[in-house]
Amino acid sequence: MWGIIATWRMALEGVTQSADALMQGHRAGDAVVDAVAAVEDFPFYKSVGYGGLPTENGEVELDAAWMDGDTLAFGAVANLVDIANPVRVAHALGRQRYNCVLVGQGAREWALSQGFADKKMLTERALQHYRKRCRETLDKGLSPYDGHDTVGIIGLDKQGSMSVATSTSGLFMKKRGRVGDSPVIGSGFYCDSEVGAATATGVGEDLMKGCASYEIVRRMAQGMAPQQAADSVVQELEDKLMSRFGRAGDLSVVCMNARGEFGAATNIQSFSFVVATENQPLTVFRTERVQGKTVCYPVDDAWMQAYAARIRAPIEE
Amino acid sequence: MWGIIATWRMALEGVTQSADALMQGHRAGDAVVDAVAAVEDFPFYKSVGYGGLPTENGEVELDAAWMDGDTLAFGAVANLVDIANPVRVAHALGRQRYNCVLVGQGAREWALSQGFADKKMLTERALQHYRKRCRETLDKGLSPYDGHDTVGIIGLDKQGSMSVATSTSGLFMKKRGRVGDSPVIGSGFYCDSEVGAATATGVGEDLMKGCASYEIVRRMAQGMAPQQAADSVVQELEDKLMSRFGRAGDLSVVCMNARGEFGAATNIQSFSFVVATENQPLTVFRTERVQGKTVCYPVDDAWMQAYAARIRAPIEE
Repeated sequence: MWGIIATWRMALEGVTQSADALMQGHRAGDAVVDAVAAVEDFPFYKSVGYGGLPTENGEVELDAAWMDGDTLAFGAVANLVDIANPVRVAHALGRQRYNCVLVGQGAREWALSQGFADKKMLTERALQHYRKRCRETLDKGLSPYDGHDTVGIIGLDKQGSMSVATSTSGLFMKKRGRVGDSPVIGSGFYCDSEVGAATATGVGEDLMKGCASYEIVRRMAQGMAPQQAADSVVQELEDKLMSRFGRAGDLSVVCMNARGEFGAATNIQSFSFVVATENQPLTVFRTERVQGKTVCYPVDDAWMQAYAARIRAPIEE
Repeated sequence: MWGIIATWRMALEGVTQSADALMQGHRAGDAVVDAVAAVEDFPFYKSVGYGGLPTENGEVELDAAWMDGDTLAFGAVANLVDIANPVRVAHALGRQRYNCVLVGQGAREWALSQGFADKKMLTERALQHYRKRCRETLDKGLSPYDGHDTVGIIGLDKQGSMSVATSTSGLFMKKRGRVGDSPVIGSGFYCDSEVGAATATGVGEDLMKGCASYEIVRRMAQGMAPQQAADSVVQELEDKLMSRFGRAGDLSVVCMNARGEFGAATNIQSFSFVVATENQPLTVFRTERVQGKTVCYPVDDAWMQAYAARIRAPIEE
C-alpha cells in the first residue's frame, strides 16, 4: 500500500508529483518534503512559503516541520526569515539528536551554515494584500487575523514507513515572533508508522489547546477508523473550547492510518483536501459538516476553475 | 483541597511561599507564576532565569510557559533575551486570544511594550561555567549537552482551579534559537482543572516525541492514579524511544490530579521534587527508579546541606 493526503487544494500539484514517486516505491520522508516544497515555491499560495502573507510589521516569518514515523525523530523551524524552503530546513533538523527545533535568527543562521539558499520571500503581491488589510483594519475595524491555511502532507510508502510535513506563513498580520501549531509536535502534526499520522490547519492557538494531531493518532492506535478519529477529535475539541474558553476558531484536520485509510474533519464550510492511495485515484475533495460529521465531495471543474481564478485575481488596493 | 508540586529541589523557596498563598485561598494561576518567578530570580540556579547557562554563542535565551486549567488558555515564550521574568511574560500572553506564543526578538519587543523590565540575565558565574565547558568540550571531547533542569510547577487552589508554569534556560550550550519542550504545550506542560496537570524536565527533544505531559493528563482523565500515570508514561516513552529511535535521554515528570493526589516519575537516579498539599506537609523528595517504578524518599539534612554547598561551590576554571 502507498498513500498521500494533504490539507487544502493548494497541495494538488505537489501531491500529484509525490503520489507518482510513492507509487514508484520512493520513500515517504522525501515525498512529503518535496510535495510541501512545491507548495512553498508557488507564488500564488499566500499562506505558505514564497508569496506568504507577512506579519503586522510587513515581514514574512515562516514555520515548518517534518516528522519520521519510523523513529519519531522530527525537526521544526519557526519565524524563519528569507530562506527558500523552510520544510527542507525542518527535514535537515530532523536528523539532529539535539537542537532539532530552531526559531528566529538562530534558525536562519543554521540554515545558511548548512547551505540553504537565502531568498527574499516577500512578493509584491503579498505586499499588496498587506497594504489592503492594513487599510481595512484601520478603516473598517475588521479583525486583522484571517487566513491561516497551513499545508500539511502525510505520506505512506510501500515499505510501510510514514512521514508528515507542514509549512505555513502563519496567521496573516500576526505579531512578530508568533508561533502557531504548525511547527509544534502533537498539535500541528504527529506521525507513528505503526499507527498513522495526522496534521492540522486552522487557528493554531486553539488547535494547540487540545494537542489535536497527537490525539487523532492515539485514537487510531486504539483501533478507531481515521474518519471517526478525525471527526471525534474536532467535535470534542470544539465543544470543549466553547464550554471552557467561550469560543473556538477554525479547526481542520486530515489523517491516514498505516493501511492507507484516510479521514478529514473540519468545523468550517470551506475546507478542502487532496488524497491519493493505491486504492483511491488522486482527488481534490471539498468538505461539509453535517451534524458533527464531515462529508466529503469530489470537487468539479467549475470549483477548480473558480479556485484558479480566485488565487490570481487582481488585488483592489 | 489545595496543592502544589514542582520539579527539582530548586523550587523549594518559591513553593514554600506559594503553598502558603494557596492555603490562604489565593488563586493557582498567580501562585504558580510567583513560585516560578522566585526560581528565575535566584542567581545560583543555573538552568532557569537569572544566572541561567548560555547558548554556544554565550547568550542566555530563556523559555517559559503558563497554562490555565479552567479555560485551557496558555501563553509561552521561547528564546527570550534579557527580560527579568520570562514566566510573567508567558502569563501575560496567556490572556491573548491570538499570538499567545511569541519567540525571539518578537517576544522581547512585546514584553518591553507591556512594561516588562529589561535585565541582563547573564551572570559572571554563568560565564565561568560557560568558559569551563568550552574548554572541556575542546580538550576532552565531552558532549557539550548537559544540564537541562526545567522548573515546572503545578498548583491547585481551594476553588478547584489548576494551573501550571514552566521556566528554563534550556540545554546548556544549545544552538542559538533552540527550543525544547518547556514552552511547548502537551510536551513540557498540560493542565485541565477537571482532571489534573503534568509538567516535564529532561531532554526536550525526547519528551516532545511522546507529548509526555498531555498523555499523563489524559491517563488521569481515564481514572488512572497520578503515580501510575507518571510511571507508565515515562516507562512506555523510554521503551518506545529505545526501540524506535535507538536511545532515550533523561525523562522526568511530576503531576497532580484535581483531588490533590500527586505522582512523579523518572528514568534517572538524581531527580528531586517538592510538594505540599492540604494533606502533605511541604517536603523535598528524591527519587529512585526500581524495576520501572519510581520510589520517593524525603531528603535528609545532609542531602539539603550538600545541595546548598554544591550550587554555591567555586567554579574551577
